[in-house]
Amino acid sequence: MQRIYIENLQKHVGKEAIIAGWVDVRRDHGKLIFIDLRDRTGKVQCVIVPSALKAYEAGKDLRSEWVVQMTGVVQERPGNMRNDKEPNGTIELAVSEIEVLSRAAEMPFELGTELNLDTYLDHLPLTLRTPRARDIFTLQATLVEEYRTVLRNQGFTEFQAPGIVGGDAEGGAAVFKVEYLKDKAAYLATSPQFYKQIMVGIFERVFTIAKVFRAEEHATSRHLNEYSTLDFEMGFVRDHHDVMETLEKALRHLVKAVSEKHSDILIRFGMEIPLLPQNIPVMKLREAQEIITKETGEDCVNEPDLEPAHERFLCEYARKNLNSDFLFVTHYPVSKRPFYTYEDETDPGFTKSFDLLFRGVEIVTGGQRIHDYNTLVEKIKAKNLNPEKFSFYLEAFKYGMPPHGGCAIGLERLTQKFLGLENVKEAALFPRDMNRIDTLLSQ
Amino acid sequence: MQRIYIENLQKHVGKEAIIAGWVDVRRDHGKLIFIDLRDRTGKVQCVIVPSALKAYEAGKDLRSEWVVQMTGVVQERPGNMRNDKEPNGTIELAVSEIEVLSRAAEMPFELGTELNLDTYLDHLPLTLRTPRARDIFTLQATLVEEYRTVLRNQGFTEFQAPGIVGGDAEGGAAVFKVEYLKDKAAYLATSPQFYKQIMVGIFERVFTIAKVFRAEEHATSRHLNEYSTLDFEMGFVRDHHDVMETLEKALRHLVKAVSEKHSDILIRFGMEIPLLPQNIPVMKLREAQEIITKETGEDCVNEPDLEPAHERFLCEYARKNLNSDFLFVTHYPVSKRPFYTYEDETDPGFTKSFDLLFRGVEIVTGGQRIHDYNTLVEKIKAKNLNPEKFSFYLEAFKYGMPPHGGCAIGLERLTQKFLGLENVKEAALFPRDMNRIDTLLSQ
Repeated sequence: MQRIYIENLQKHVGKEAIIAGWVDVRRDHGKLIFIDLRDRTGKVQCVIVPSALKAYEAGKDLRSEWVVQMTGVVQERPGNMRNDKEPNGTIELAVSEIEVLSRAAEMPFELGTELNLDTYLDHLPLTLRTPRARDIFTLQATLVEEYRTVLRNQGFTEFQAPGIVGGDAEGGAAVFKVEYLKDKAAYLATSPQFYKQIMVGIFERVFTIAKVFRAEEHATSRHLNEYSTLDFEMGFVRDHHDVMETLEKALRHLVKAVSEKHSDILIRFGMEIPLLPQNIPVMKLREAQEIITKETGEDCVNEPDLEPAHERFLCEYARKNLNSDFLFVTHYPVSKRPFYTYEDETDPGFTKSFDLLFRGVEIVTGGQRIHDYNTLVEKIKAKNLNPEKFSFYLEAFKYGMPPHGGCAIGLERLTQKFLGLENVKEAALFPRDMNRIDTLLSQ
Repeated sequence: MQRIYIENLQKHVGKEAIIAGWVDVRRDHGKLIFIDLRDRTGKVQCVIVPSALKAYEAGKDLRSEWVVQMTGVVQERPGNMRNDKEPNGTIELAVSEIEVLSRAAEMPFELGTELNLDTYLDHLPLTLRTPRARDIFTLQATLVEEYRTVLRNQGFTEFQAPGIVGGDAEGGAAVFKVEYLKDKAAYLATSPQFYKQIMVGIFERVFTIAKVFRAEEHATSRHLNEYSTLDFEMGFVRDHHDVMETLEKALRHLVKAVSEKHSDILIRFGMEIPLLPQNIPVMKLREAQEIITKETGEDCVNEPDLEPAHERFLCEYARKNLNSDFLFVTHYPVSKRPFYTYEDETDPGFTKSFDLLFRGVEIVTGGQRIHDYNTLVEKIKAKNLNPEKFSFYLEAFKYGMPPHGGCAIGLERLTQKFLGLENVKEAALFPRDMNRIDTLLSQ
């Protein structure tokens, strides 16, 4: 007989079945032993009665997280034990046989308990088994899958970007140094930026899901030292608006997919489907700053960038006044953007770039890129960087590149904001930060 | 008017159209200028006649890899110019207007020329634009996509494995050291092994596509210092055979997808659809060694592993005698496998592990893993490793893990062998090796 997934047990009422999984909860009522058994599809109550001699003996030992296989007959629960609101709330398994596949040590805490973040992170191999963590990473897997689908359907080709690079790609972000072979230094990619631009020369439209690494000593609820980026880049654009349109289409698809597949998860997290109007509102950085200054009295008009508090304020503003949980902010100054950012001819000093804010935080950065070789070399020099160090990248431009642009979505932040998680670390399976790589670094 | 992709031009015969792309080839016949324009969907011949004054002036300058937008009327080619065998071989664009989007420097070589590997790698931003390279990475994108599809359809959940790790995961492979924050050392992942095993505790069935890094000073046609691994891991298995069955199903799906979507690519590479019989043949390492010894006279019976030449021989043997391009070799000795490998109770000293050979090279390694905490701790000690260094990983086992197993497919080798590429570096977009990270390290 084959193992049956717990979500399918309803179809086996009155029949014998084998199920397997983890002991979620054990309850004893008089002489009866009740076990809630959990597999990847759900939970079901199992009843072990003293007359099932061997099973009962085995059942006495069972504790939380033991892995067992149980054989028994699926039966309707007695009337007073029925719970119509729960999956499998009306059935139970009358156990005849128990095979212990794996024992578990005594739990350091109940799995359902609310834990502080440090304790949660200290015990991830165990705490990831909670329904809350399973929900988070189920939804994240959907985001990744649907992101690929929506781009592939628009003619984008997926590629694998390298993790080890020869230098600091953006000439800005703090990079991790790697001891490469033959005593040479290498670095970890801070972005697949250069490679996706090169790939525009091959496939015109490309996307990648890549791990990137930032050697920044942040201790905020928004930063990770390793994260996943959903990048795309597209050729033959008019300007950054084509990129924003493609991004908007992708987000619309993601919101739809999440609301269709995971409305149950949203409900469990107390979250609504994000407000995404016909067109995501767009404002220039300077307009946004004027709104902030006018509404809050805090003058930020000539700042080159938005503070986290400003991003939160703008999102509240957009939700209240523009009926949107998303907001595009464009035209960051040349000084604040990487050298490859396209300057707006009609608005000198400012770039055809954008950030997308979502529920208080920047989740996407993008824009049009410079495609002309000579301009690019000039801009590299203007940032006091050495064009020779970019010779590989520059070769793409030397031999003809179309106008192009793209963007990068932070997967963990996107997940965080869909679910209203307090800390982005909850949206990374095994977060790397200043103090921790799985275990604490100070240990 | 909107840009039209070149593959769709056939539908616009007799009408005006705008196309955009790269100048693939330029030919002059008397006063006529012929341009083959290439976009991501195909090529088409464009004719520029002297009477189209401005276009003709612009056309005179055009050289290979210039990026242009051309407006013109799609027309049938004259009878003697028609080529029914080529896509768009019967039509051409009579150009009325040319907009140069980007110039290109003079080419260092014709893009069609056969190049040696070093020159190819020296100029990847350009050489990846060849039809050959585009074919390779189009097929690779399909492999990745279809791998995910076939696993997802069997209830596997995708997850993102970390790239930075705290230690050497397998206690064997050479690792790259990273200067982490606060003067701490970290390493680059050599495999997502530990994380996918931990994830079995959460989702039972998981897969990931991860970049992994090996600090080995290899100079072979089979090794890369950074590569992509298609990993999966599944719980509640009987033994390694369940893993092999799932892998076989995945491969069957990949072979089918490639033969359906990319038969044109296989033809261009002179490759046949891989031979994949009803059941992939399986032999124990010792049986394989007996065959090698018997057939070649070279005694390798007590060796702990197969030499590359042996793998090639076995694949030829399997193709000739077993009608298969794939061959499972199982039961490698405990001494040659990582500590977490499950020892076969019925064959002491040997493991429930396997390699899958494909066209002369090992492309997959897998097997059943130890799920019992105490056994695992013992095996770590037996390899002279310190269990305390594995405390994070071990926590999964401390709290109950089902029997499980999985495997890792090397994406670049799989691509290489599908297309019969001589060197695996051709199957990595931006290969990292002893001498090169984009540019040569000695520079």
